[in-house]
Amino acid sequence: METNKEEQLEWGPTVWSHLTALRDRSPLIQCITNFVSMDLVANTLLSAGASPAMIHSLQEFSDFTPHIHALYVNVGTLSPDWLSSMKAAALLANELRKPWVLDPVAAGSSQFRLNACLELLLLKPTVIRGNASEIIALSQAGIDMGPTKGVDSSHESMDAVEAAKFLAEKSGSIVAVSGAVDIICSSKSIIHGDRLVFVHNGVPMLQKITATGCAVTALIAAFVAAAADPLHAFDATVSALSVFGIAGEMGMELAKGPASLRMHLIDSLYGLDQPALLSHINITG
Amino acid sequence: METNKEEQLEWGPTVWSHLTALRDRSPLIQCITNFVSMDLVANTLLSAGASPAMIHSLQEFSDFTPHIHALYVNVGTLSPDWLSSMKAAALLANELRKPWVLDPVAAGSSQFRLNACLELLLLKPTVIRGNASEIIALSQAGIDMGPTKGVDSSHESMDAVEAAKFLAEKSGSIVAVSGAVDIICSSKSIIHGDRLVFVHNGVPMLQKITATGCAVTALIAAFVAAAADPLHAFDATVSALSVFGIAGEMGMELAKGPASLRMHLIDSLYGLDQPALLSHINITG
Amino acid sequence: METNKEEQLEWGPTVWSHLTALRDRSPLIQCITNFVSMDLVANTLLSAGASPAMIHSLQEFSDFTPHIHALYVNVGTLSPDWLSSMKAAALLANELRKPWVLDPVAAGSSQFRLNACLELLLLKPTVIRGNASEIIALSQAGIDMGPTKGVDSSHESMDAVEAAKFLAEKSGSIVAVSGAVDIICSSKSIIHGDRLVFVHNGVPMLQKITATGCAVTALIAAFVAAAADPLHAFDATVSALSVFGIAGEMGMELAKGPASLRMHLIDSLYGLDQPALLSHINITG
Repeated sequence: METNKEEQLEWGPTVWSHLTALRDRSPLIQCITNFVSMDLVANTLLSAGASPAMIHSLQEFSDFTPHIHALYVNVGTLSPDWLSSMKAAALLANELRKPWVLDPVAAGSSQFRLNACLELLLLKPTVIRGNASEIIALSQAGIDMGPTKGVDSSHESMDAVEAAKFLAEKSGSIVAVSGAVDIICSSKSIIHGDRLVFVHNGVPMLQKITATGCAVTALIAAFVAAAADPLHAFDATVSALSVFGIAGEMGMELAKGPASLRMHLIDSLYGLDQPALLSHINITG
Repeated sequence: METNKEEQLEWGPTVWSHLTALRDRSPLIQCITNFVSMDLVANTLLSAGASPAMIHSLQEFSDFTPHIHALYVNVGTLSPDWLSSMKAAALLANELRKPWVLDPVAAGSSQFRLNACLELLLLKPTVIRGNASEIIALSQAGIDMGPTKGVDSSHESMDAVEAAKFLAEKSGSIVAVSGAVDIICSSKSIIHGDRLVFVHNGVPMLQKITATGCAVTALIAAFVAAAADPLHAFDATVSALSVFGIAGEMGMELAKGPASLRMHLIDSLYGLDQPALLSHINITG
Repeated sequence: METNKEEQLEWGPTVWSHLTALRDRSPLIQCITNFVSMDLVANTLLSAGASPAMIHSLQEFSDFTPHIHALYVNVGTLSPDWLSSMKAAALLANELRKPWVLDPVAAGSSQFRLNACLELLLLKPTVIRGNASEIIALSQAGIDMGPTKGVDSSHESMDAVEAAKFLAEKSGSIVAVSGAVDIICSSKSIIHGDRLVFVHNGVPMLQKITATGCAVTALIAAFVAAAADPLHAFDATVSALSVFGIAGEMGMELAKGPASLRMHLIDSLYGLDQPALLSHINITG
């Protein structure tokens, strides 16, 4: 896909200012995420400049959640108990007017999980980030479609543009689909208006590392939390996806496989400076 | 131990064809494993070419488990709730004629855990993979022997040959004992017949990395899942242990300690090609 | 802060002998720790020479806990169920006269968590290790102070000297505060007497890696377990903090960011020899 030099010149300062805001404000992100991802999610947030807190017990929310800057909910290793916590935390985040971000991992892999995601969608996440299969599953919910395969995506992200638009309209959330090209869209019914942006940063090998999807969704929560204004949540989401993808590209230059990529990705995210960001950024739409 | 050039010439193509099948088929492996191991297990499976899904809630099994290619059960951080899930998943895997693999972590460390492992054994795992202490504990169950030490092995794997043979006879499962030399055996009562094979690949420092045992058992599940025929499960098990050990040997050439070994191990598993495999393979028996 | 050459000459052999004891005895450490930290805690213990066992189910304690050399309790991802296990394990450790070590992660972040930590304090941990905010929260408990920020420290560790002294007096435990300078103190009411020591080893980037605090507390448990005499628990605590900090300094020489620091830290801990230890050690007080 061709990219427009002018577009990058516009997006560059936006993405850099979002990253700078994140590093300056070090937002506190409450994470209710799956067991597999906790280490990578926490290290991604720390490297980016945020402050993660994995707090999932109902007993703590009334004291703790008022102090957070965003909530991150990820249904990866879902169980009924944890689902209760997720819903209570999302409700409280809404009451407190804190942004919250949903990662509907493997949304279509069981009716229990799909229903859980739909219940969470009703609580109006600020942003939903999934792969193509997950976003398609959520957009088609109600239509029988059979389970999708595990947590990997069996669809290309470009197939999911229509599904993403439909889900954005239906949910009122910003919808991000990650893949070879990341899609970010919002509908005209919400304050962000009818927008559709594509992020071309990233490398395929990220899919060979567990929880990179979970990590980028957590990063979206941190970028949204650090944005000065709720109106900037859309650009914050685009920025998070671009920054994570750029860290992946820079990591890939040094990597010899998935495990060294994981290390270099986090190191690159930590050290990312303005020239590197501006030379790698690749956003269209 | 001396190895026979001819044997390697026989095993080489077998192991390579099993690895190729795994990469081509990318089997979906449902993992119900301990909290410590989830990251390494998922990354090991991804690097080898499989697709991991950590799904442990009973609510999801009827929808999800029919789509898997193998189930992996690991009792590491056992609790009564998770044991219920493990048993239900194993039962369902049997009904669906899916292979399943058991890792009886620290089997002898408490009566609760030993009983749990024995209950799981009754559900006829395709393969059981443990260290010498664990396999000895399972083979002697019913005979009082006192708890074994933690999750590490206090026995050399060669001490466990008789225990493994006995357990294979008793359980009808393929039994793998990992250690300085890995032992894989099956009894004459099952389709694989009376076999006993030794894998000499691997390096001692793997024991200084948590969850490498868990990871290789998951890899066995993936190799067994990818095998064209249940009759090939024995060779698939041998292949998984050899491939993991070879990745460890190749990683060790670059490693400066346990953490860099862990990284290079996964990178090597991802990149393992036929010449490297054939030059490192070391299987006897 | 200036350091005294003579002091290092005294501490050097002490710290080295504690590390050697740990490597020789390979103590079995039962860990009831948070989900985020399990991988790093286990790998830290293995690299240092200890044997970790993550066993949190009540059903196993009566069989397993008699065989351990120390218990490590960390309240990171606390829930009511896990708190019950922590209290039961601590009680049993006391009955069995095993040392146990408490990490009061984010102690001040909710009333539930603060109460949990206070209940655990009543069970007289041998050592408590927290950051400045956590130790201040525990020392002030009963005085309203509002929640502290997440799991990060918002206080410099030197602010916590008085809090640590007060908590040591109140609890009868050895109290360690980690930060730019680590503080270790005990009160005159206990066998270790009225001591106050400062460890200057470590690097700031350790705070950008999740669970390094949890890992060093686990290491304290291992050093205390390996000490020949309960009277040496104070020096063992100082030694653990110094050794971990030195591994961090050595790792930092090779690191390009938090993820590579994490790897080199563990490798350095594994390979740490006497000359490197003696040249880096920096303890005062």
